Amino acid sequence: MVTAVEAIRAKRDGGELTPAMIDAFVSSAARGGWEAYQLSALLMAIFVRGMTPDETAYLTKAMTDSGDRIDLSDVPGPKVDKHSTGGVGDKSSLILAPLAAACGVIVPMMSGRGLGHTGGTLDKLDAIPGFRTNLSLDEFKTALRVTGVGMIGQTSRVAPADKTLYALRDVTGTVESIPLITASILSKKLAEGISGLVLDVKVGSGAFMKTAETARALAKSLVDGARANGLRCGALLTNMEEPLGRAVGNANEVVECIETLKGRGPKDLELLSVLLAARMVRLAGLAATDDEAEAKVRRALDSGAGLERFRRIVEHQGGDPRVVDDPSRLPRAPRTTVVKAGRSGHIVKLDAESVGVAACRLGAGRRTADDAVDPAVGVIVLASVGDRVSAGDDVFAVAYRDGSSLAEVESLLSRAVVVADDSPVLRPLVIEEIAP
Amino acid sequence: MVTAVEAIRAKRDGGELTPAMIDAFVSSAARGGWEAYQLSALLMAIFVRGMTPDETAYLTKAMTDSGDRIDLSDVPGPKVDKHSTGGVGDKSSLILAPLAAACGVIVPMMSGRGLGHTGGTLDKLDAIPGFRTNLSLDEFKTALRVTGVGMIGQTSRVAPADKTLYALRDVTGTVESIPLITASILSKKLAEGISGLVLDVKVGSGAFMKTAETARALAKSLVDGARANGLRCGALLTNMEEPLGRAVGNANEVVECIETLKGRGPKDLELLSVLLAARMVRLAGLAATDDEAEAKVRRALDSGAGLERFRRIVEHQGGDPRVVDDPSRLPRAPRTTVVKAGRSGHIVKLDAESVGVAACRLGAGRRTADDAVDPAVGVIVLASVGDRVSAGDDVFAVAYRDGSSLAEVESLLSRAVVVADDSPVLRPLVIEEIAP
Repeated sequence: MVTAVEAIRAKRDGGELTPAMIDAFVSSAARGGWEAYQLSALLMAIFVRGMTPDETAYLTKAMTDSGDRIDLSDVPGPKVDKHSTGGVGDKSSLILAPLAAACGVIVPMMSGRGLGHTGGTLDKLDAIPGFRTNLSLDEFKTALRVTGVGMIGQTSRVAPADKTLYALRDVTGTVESIPLITASILSKKLAEGISGLVLDVKVGSGAFMKTAETARALAKSLVDGARANGLRCGALLTNMEEPLGRAVGNANEVVECIETLKGRGPKDLELLSVLLAARMVRLAGLAATDDEAEAKVRRALDSGAGLERFRRIVEHQGGDPRVVDDPSRLPRAPRTTVVKAGRSGHIVKLDAESVGVAACRLGAGRRTADDAVDPAVGVIVLASVGDRVSAGDDVFAVAYRDGSSLAEVESLLSRAVVVADDSPVLRPLVIEEIAP
Repeated sequence: MVTAVEAIRAKRDGGELTPAMIDAFVSSAARGGWEAYQLSALLMAIFVRGMTPDETAYLTKAMTDSGDRIDLSDVPGPKVDKHSTGGVGDKSSLILAPLAAACGVIVPMMSGRGLGHTGGTLDKLDAIPGFRTNLSLDEFKTALRVTGVGMIGQTSRVAPADKTLYALRDVTGTVESIPLITASILSKKLAEGISGLVLDVKVGSGAFMKTAETARALAKSLVDGARANGLRCGALLTNMEEPLGRAVGNANEVVECIETLKGRGPKDLELLSVLLAARMVRLAGLAATDDEAEAKVRRALDSGAGLERFRRIVEHQGGDPRVVDDPSRLPRAPRTTVVKAGRSGHIVKLDAESVGVAACRLGAGRRTADDAVDPAVGVIVLASVGDRVSAGDDVFAVAYRDGSSLAEVESLLSRAVVVADDSPVLRPLVIEEIAP
């Protein structure tokens, strides 16, 4: 039996952890054994010394096996999911899932809640009146059979080791570790019973990874870890310097998803959703090339098949499908105000993190995991980077419930927008791709 | 107020901890605040990233101030102590303390118990019938006034932060860190109320530091940390490839100390005790040069003043002074055996660690902190490195109580002695000195 001290010493000195050491670590995190101070000492040693791809892959497997793996073998069709590393205004899941399903992909999607300045898919779904994400396993499978999509939260039986380690990392300064992030993300995705995974690794102010270099390293680690565990996997590195689309806040974002599925959404959001859905279609074996896959997804979008699929998903999971035609049925904040440009010129920056923090302060997100979220509040970005504005033009619309945090929110948003004389060089939406 | 995560992140990323961060860490270790898993995460970050001399000095000070500092200002005379980093057969404290005191040094000596293959001064003192080490502060001061020496254990009020951190390091793989060792050792010595400290940093098989390089780094860190905290301090790096002297085991070692104070001890032990006592005499300002100090100590030894002082110390602290003239009054094991040389030739190695482990298995030491120690058992080394032996010559005498561990002990000792055709190059006793 491997002791905690043996494993800690091995990693501390820059060596590799054996499978037996990783098993003891993960089993202790899931079911007890080592003390929390031993888990955290090893987390720090891993943080500083890193892990080889083999260690990361084995850690991922062990964390997956610490809980249940959903068996979807009795649900026909190719199962592919998408995972985003998180950003501001990132609501592409609600668009690409119905688009991919309309093309024949089965999308078993377990999502999390938002924390800090980044949103979470579950919070957006909760903004739809009646929508249930706490499906039983049978209900989940039925949803996949009927609509091609099941959207649920993570139960306590999925990757319990990750729950312990994630909480411990948060309070021991060991969050930003690529092997630990890799195992945390992938263990939950592997538990979904999928055969393919498309990754959207965000880069920039509003993302966890602020530079292309670190995002690339994370993407590579995730793709390697997924493949080593039998998943077909590819990744896009995408821009998160600015919010994705225009809406930030849960009900706002659902409205924008519906608009996008109607062909009237912001072009960056539409493009990213189509590109990601197309990668899912390819990974599912439903198209031979990316171009063919994109053409299929475009047809699903243009024909309205994606929108209809969205309506069926909402209805099947207990939500009010009338929101599709009448978005005013979604929660709306009682009051609005605007934030204006302070000078004339070109918008050169709309800082995603600041917008995300502002939305969080309004109540759209959580500062700590126990906070409640207000689905109605949020921010709409009324301009884009590169736009010419005059002093006094509206740049942000703010939907709020009470004025208690308004001064702070306005200050954050005023600082989020930078106007200059020269027009900026526009960033591409997709920075890089790791093909599957 | 500094949070645990802020401090952990600073060190994790290779930065320096601020005094406020160190204060929060040490205060939490002593009195609660941070969780144990946060303390251990920072211990690991310190282990891997290290500390600057300034950080180490401040950590030392903070750990000292986490508990009581003994105020000896009402005890006249220069107070100087010695600290050894621990070895096998290292009983020099019991010889040098009376020698230094006979030369006018006041020696307030707080010692620890042994663990693993290394012995502890308190265990040796406990082998003397009646000897009390749990003196009150007033009794301690009286002992210093009357005999010049007070030999006590560490109370729970001395450096309580060290107690927490030492226990945590033991179970989190963060023991072998030079800044952490430095702060742990010095915080307890600074609490003694001394103005000078002589360090005996052991090098080799039986020592904590196996190479001169690591021992030198530890010695330098200790000397720097002591000086930064106002202590006059110098260090000797001394050989611990073989046991010091011939006796290993508590009562055995007391007998050898008495023999040495009578001028009949092993020459390595006598020399080291004289050299260390002489450094104490110099640090105390009682001699202008090392030569002058050594001459004083030699006179105390040759005249019997050291032996008489030892007798008074034993008597004053409640021990039976008749052991000085009649060592048979010390505990004796009921049975003895010998371990013989397996071949003829020159002894080239007498592995200190193996001898220490063998003595520990006999019951002379502790495997864990809660083990009881048998004062009577132990090993006597009957030969020296460089000696010519014939196959079948006795190399070790073993004094034991029951035969349960004898086979293992004999095996350890047989492997501890290496006999070869060529005579070895003899190692010097003192490898290096850091002058005060």
